[in-house]
Amino acid sequence: MKKIVTVSREFGSGGRETGKRLAEALGFNYVDSEIIQAVAEQTKLDENYLRDKLEQGIANYPVTIGRTFSQVKSISNSAMLIAKQHNIIRDIAAKSDCVIVGRGADVALADLKPFKIFVYADMRSKIARIRSRAQTDEILTDKEIERKIRHIDGARKSTHDLYSPRAWGDKAGYNICINTTDTDVKSIIKPLSEIIVAYFK
Amino acid sequence: MKKIVTVSREFGSGGRETGKRLAEALGFNYVDSEIIQAVAEQTKLDENYLRDKLEQGIANYPVTIGRTFSQVKSISNSAMLIAKQHNIIRDIAAKSDCVIVGRGADVALADLKPFKIFVYADMRSKIARIRSRAQTDEILTDKEIERKIRHIDGARKSTHDLYSPRAWGDKAGYNICINTTDTDVKSIIKPLSEIIVAYFK
Repeated sequence: MKKIVTVSREFGSGGRETGKRLAEALGFNYVDSEIIQAVAEQTKLDENYLRDKLEQGIANYPVTIGRTFSQVKSISNSAMLIAKQHNIIRDIAAKSDCVIVGRGADVALADLKPFKIFVYADMRSKIARIRSRAQTDEILTDKEIERKIRHIDGARKSTHDLYSPRAWGDKAGYNICINTTDTDVKSIIKPLSEIIVAYFK
Repeated sequence: MKKIVTVSREFGSGGRETGKRLAEALGFNYVDSEIIQAVAEQTKLDENYLRDKLEQGIANYPVTIGRTFSQVKSISNSAMLIAKQHNIIRDIAAKSDCVIVGRGADVALADLKPFKIFVYADMRSKIARIRSRAQTDEILTDKEIERKIRHIDGARKSTHDLYSPRAWGDKAGYNICINTTDTDVKSIIKPLSEIIVAYFK
């Protein structure tokens, strides 16, 4: 069985950087854009459209609420895309040891016993991280960045929670949860990779 | 400023072992029974009584509920002992780099920026760990062990939550949360100590 590491993360916490660097340290395949590419190929849909659509996820409406036809259609489209994405993730994970950031991989691969990481940080630290990597033409206030963080994480949570018995970010669902507040991600990669190696022994 | 590591943990998750081994790996002072000894000395109370009393903590009654005189007395006694314990922890932590397991140290020392660890595991794994270290004359069913775990962790939570703005076990309150389900604690000590060294750099 392949060794799989999944990284779930709060937006702005440095989860993607953690995943990339871990893959490098472990000598595992870092899986990212190839997932969307494969979904695009199978569905004949545009990659950017898919990226947006999958990022929006599925809002967790109560089942009893009245819905318009276009809402129903949008939900069923998203559910179909998420199912496709899950299947593609399973195909990719069967091929080589890998690190996958986001994309519901922890849920899609649950039965394959991946090592599951959750990366988080406090709001001040996430805002600072997002600001430091922003393009100079994107000038957002702290309030706007905070709203964006809450929006993106809200979509991650509601989609995750439809597919998993455990809440997104509930530590019980992960092997390790790492708070990157005031932490340089680079400094934790080597020890973290050793913990992962020990897990797969 | 001294380097302080606090270990909070679910009962049966291997938190105490983690703390002891970490102290050894880091060359830090492992602080445990000397806290109770110091409280006993200051209060002229018996150590075993104190251990029990502090383990029971303070139940989180709504403030408006009617209470008997003996309940009020018991709560005020516990609160007094916890306050003494906090002061003693602060004295001890000022003397040398140290690892402290439990005892509300993460709350008592919050302003000293300790590295805060939370150790947890799933119920099955905690029951197995408790069973493996039980004396042969203590024969408890799984149900009884589970009840004991919930009781002890309930007391830890309600006491912690009276003194901290964050809930006990809420990952936001810790630097790292480690799930020891199916994990040999020994295998994670070296990498974990490296993460701690990086934090204090």
